[in-house]
Amino acid sequence: MKTLRTIHAEDLEDIAIGGAILGTGGGGDPYVGKLMAQEAIRKHGPVKLIDVEELPDDALVVPVCMMGAPTVMTEKLPQGDELMNAFRQLEKVLGRKIDAVLCGEAGGINSTTPFVVAAACGLPLVDGDGMGRAYPELQMETFTLHGVSATPMVLCDDKGNSLVLETVSNGWTERLARAATVEMGGSALLAFYPMSGEVAKKAVVRGTLSLCVNLGRTLRETRTAHADPVAAITKLLGASVIFSGRVTDVDRRTIGGFARGSARFDGLDEWKGHSFKLDFQNEFLMAERDGRIICTTPDLITLLEAETGAPVTADSLRYGLRLVALAFPCNPQWQTPAGIALVGPRYFGYDTDYRPYAFT
Amino acid sequence: MKTLRTIHAEDLEDIAIGGAILGTGGGGDPYVGKLMAQEAIRKHGPVKLIDVEELPDDALVVPVCMMGAPTVMTEKLPQGDELMNAFRQLEKVLGRKIDAVLCGEAGGINSTTPFVVAAACGLPLVDGDGMGRAYPELQMETFTLHGVSATPMVLCDDKGNSLVLETVSNGWTERLARAATVEMGGSALLAFYPMSGEVAKKAVVRGTLSLCVNLGRTLRETRTAHADPVAAITKLLGASVIFSGRVTDVDRRTIGGFARGSARFDGLDEWKGHSFKLDFQNEFLMAERDGRIICTTPDLITLLEAETGAPVTADSLRYGLRLVALAFPCNPQWQTPAGIALVGPRYFGYDTDYRPYAFT
Repeated sequence: MKTLRTIHAEDLEDIAIGGAILGTGGGGDPYVGKLMAQEAIRKHGPVKLIDVEELPDDALVVPVCMMGAPTVMTEKLPQGDELMNAFRQLEKVLGRKIDAVLCGEAGGINSTTPFVVAAACGLPLVDGDGMGRAYPELQMETFTLHGVSATPMVLCDDKGNSLVLETVSNGWTERLARAATVEMGGSALLAFYPMSGEVAKKAVVRGTLSLCVNLGRTLRETRTAHADPVAAITKLLGASVIFSGRVTDVDRRTIGGFARGSARFDGLDEWKGHSFKLDFQNEFLMAERDGRIICTTPDLITLLEAETGAPVTADSLRYGLRLVALAFPCNPQWQTPAGIALVGPRYFGYDTDYRPYAFT
Repeated sequence: MKTLRTIHAEDLEDIAIGGAILGTGGGGDPYVGKLMAQEAIRKHGPVKLIDVEELPDDALVVPVCMMGAPTVMTEKLPQGDELMNAFRQLEKVLGRKIDAVLCGEAGGINSTTPFVVAAACGLPLVDGDGMGRAYPELQMETFTLHGVSATPMVLCDDKGNSLVLETVSNGWTERLARAATVEMGGSALLAFYPMSGEVAKKAVVRGTLSLCVNLGRTLRETRTAHADPVAAITKLLGASVIFSGRVTDVDRRTIGGFARGSARFDGLDEWKGHSFKLDFQNEFLMAERDGRIICTTPDLITLLEAETGAPVTADSLRYGLRLVALAFPCNPQWQTPAGIALVGPRYFGYDTDYRPYAFT
């Protein structure tokens, strides 16, 4: 398999930043995953990023990720071994060597966790993921849209407990894995959605790990050049600036393992006199401007610090922060009826239909 | 292995009655398990009950049972296949044929569920169990006192979902299996505590399935003979009558998958003018007479209908029922410090030490 790009320990800095941008406010702080991945790469060598087209049709590909409330994940440092445990145990269950690692979620902490496994196992990592962003539930993968079962799935905690799930639907997998994760203290590590190279070529949202590298590098380089980082990121993402202002109010609570809530903003500069509200369930899912819904899931909404362009998570929202809100288009797979049923606004309990944001 | 006794479909009537008596008010209604076991025996042939001493030291023995709130278990009829699924899947995980079936809990529904698996697999069933009664949590097994791990454990539901657990302690197994069971709708079927014949000989509470047969038969025969069924059961168990009266009040709620509450009684006949209170968490765990604690877990407390001697569960307690309360001694393994730590009154949140009831 031809290497698209070789990822060294220092590249993880950029990936973590890019992952936080695609994290759309959720997905967990990539900082923890970055440290784990850097340690694994320093110990085992760099990771080969490959194009999904490089996979033989009969290859066995397995995504890995961390599950739980971001609030907990950043406070409860995982042992590097847990992801490996989940991966190796799934290999045992499947009775077959896994050929490549896949990213389950390119946003947040899970933009970096697959590098831990890829480095430690000396396996290539596919450039892409199953969301093109972050989402709170594990059936919310483009893999589901292609009929891939999330099970057999292995779930491990930091204490040494593990479980192998076999379920009748990916919705049941989410329910049972969530219950176990909450019981395990709020976070767990998992290997799931085993699939063939043939299926991966159809299902994977392509290029999202390269995009993370490019987002992080762009932010770094524009800062060094004293250029406008927000403008550079907006351009790279093909995004629209949908608001700019200060945080005036944050309502946040952890319910059933999710960080839910909303944040309100008062406009600045060209948005002076306007108001803005973001609803989140781990991720930012709906944006209202002057009381009107302007963008919803599956399109992506992300917040950047106005000065530095640094991405801001729902967890780190604080009164007075000066932020810019961007919206950018989701992967077209999410815009199908099946995609909207899985991750559209109504699934999350918002009484509105999805209307694609008119990106200009 | 020499057969101690052969159990035919009609014997299950007696076993279910005996199981309800050892169920001490909980453990689920044996009626459902009885039907499943009778169907399995009619289809596959009778079950050979063997003495635990008959097991070769290197035999592999596996207990099976149903987990959940009794209230749910009796309303949510399990498919016969689910227990078999759990058993066969555990066999696959262990990579070795299981030589004999064991009963995890001789009280309630689980006095009959092992017969389903034994009949369907054509395997002998050990005459004994891991409690000598019913208890609400799955680490509450004499097996735990002998260092046997509850995992690898397989847990199946009625929808086709399953999970294989590997944990660091039997307490963690309970926590994770309970969370999954609640998510699965309140009941699940499991195969767990795989152990050798050598260990089984030390850990098993012996003869409890024979005792179930004898209890049921005794009740049946004394009724036929118009003799006193309560007196006959009391004698067979070596029990003491600790109260006789009518139910005046029942407080019952389902919390976290458990049926918790208490029942109050007014005395009749020789107990006229006295009061009685039973606390239950699935099982009857503490008895107070005239405001004084007289018997607690791990000693057994059971209720019989005064007229018929029929055992009464916490779920079927109703205002006005005329009942006799019996107390009888627990297996001595539960009276050790480790046993009391696992199932003594303080574990269940009662602020009292265990004092063995003075059985006369």
